[in-house]
Amino acid sequence: MDGKPIPGIVVGRLPVYLRALQRMAAEGRRVTSSQELGEKLGISAAQIRKDLSQFGEFGKQGTGYDIPYLITNLCHILKVDRVWDMAVVGAGDIGSAIARYQGFADRGFRVAMIFDNDPAKVGTRVGDFIVRDTAQMVESIRAAGIRIAMIAVPAAQAQAVADELVKAGVKAILNYAPLNINVPEGVWVQHTDPVTHLQRMTYYLD
Amino acid sequence: MDGKPIPGIVVGRLPVYLRALQRMAAEGRRVTSSQELGEKLGISAAQIRKDLSQFGEFGKQGTGYDIPYLITNLCHILKVDRVWDMAVVGAGDIGSAIARYQGFADRGFRVAMIFDNDPAKVGTRVGDFIVRDTAQMVESIRAAGIRIAMIAVPAAQAQAVADELVKAGVKAILNYAPLNINVPEGVWVQHTDPVTHLQRMTYYLD
Repeated sequence: MDGKPIPGIVVGRLPVYLRALQRMAAEGRRVTSSQELGEKLGISAAQIRKDLSQFGEFGKQGTGYDIPYLITNLCHILKVDRVWDMAVVGAGDIGSAIARYQGFADRGFRVAMIFDNDPAKVGTRVGDFIVRDTAQMVESIRAAGIRIAMIAVPAAQAQAVADELVKAGVKAILNYAPLNINVPEGVWVQHTDPVTHLQRMTYYLD
Repeated sequence: MDGKPIPGIVVGRLPVYLRALQRMAAEGRRVTSSQELGEKLGISAAQIRKDLSQFGEFGKQGTGYDIPYLITNLCHILKVDRVWDMAVVGAGDIGSAIARYQGFADRGFRVAMIFDNDPAKVGTRVGDFIVRDTAQMVESIRAAGIRIAMIAVPAAQAQAVADELVKAGVKAILNYAPLNINVPEGVWVQHTDPVTHLQRMTYYLD
């Protein structure tokens, strides 16, 4: 880990490795190999060994990877050996599904608050949360020290919401609106859009 | 387009270009440049030119890209110059949000049916659909000739559902369950998991 930054594409594979390892651990497994991981994930064993070796010495020739040890290390590298509070913006179908999603637990994240600008939604319950007014968003997020947010508002509002989130001190945004949002240096965005995923596949269909 | 297959990473950027172009078209724009697109998307202009040039001659030095022409071509390349019917499996929060999602229209896709194995959900309404019993899934999908499906079931059931979908003739699966599913050669899978997206970003946070 001296000097050169790790390529983003390598960083992007670590959560996939971690997820597979956590699944094996839940099944009671203690040891795996780059071969086995590779078969599960459709990634070559050599690639997995190379990726992991950029972060340290996790496996032994012949004995493979100790699953709990590798999980502990990957959680540390990805900084999910803690729990990050998150804000959800937009209490429509997608925002509500996110706020109720059970899959964040034990993976480093927790929804802490949800916002909407629709007076008909503000004050209503979504999962464990009462929807807050977007007008209070910057203040609430800043006061709570929240640094991660998910945007689930219509495309036309997404950039303005992102600008507000940045103002509030958010450093990482997962954007569900179907357009690219721009953020300043030092803020991270990931876009998730079912249609772009689907179009990557239709390319290959007859 | 002679001979060598286009790298998957290039194919994966085309839907992002298309989305940005469609947005510009909706704003009444007629012409753009690789520079402008690049700034919007955080991708270098050279990369965009190189990617597009693998599929044909779409731009002219000095005058840039004709937006409607490039949209027509990208839709054809990605095979979304038609509408693909899709099946959704799982009528929980995520499956229901997908079934009600308005963002598929005009982008090449349409939800056609939704399934669940929970007797309490089968027969209930989700958006425009009546939830069907998973027991009829293979037969219904095959009869309708559906080739794209989205999996929104708990992780423990996702692989079994994928196996059934493949049996039904599905060739492309968008998987929302938080684990890698395996499919035979000739079937495509994309995984979407908010946690892996989030962990890619927490890596960079302090």
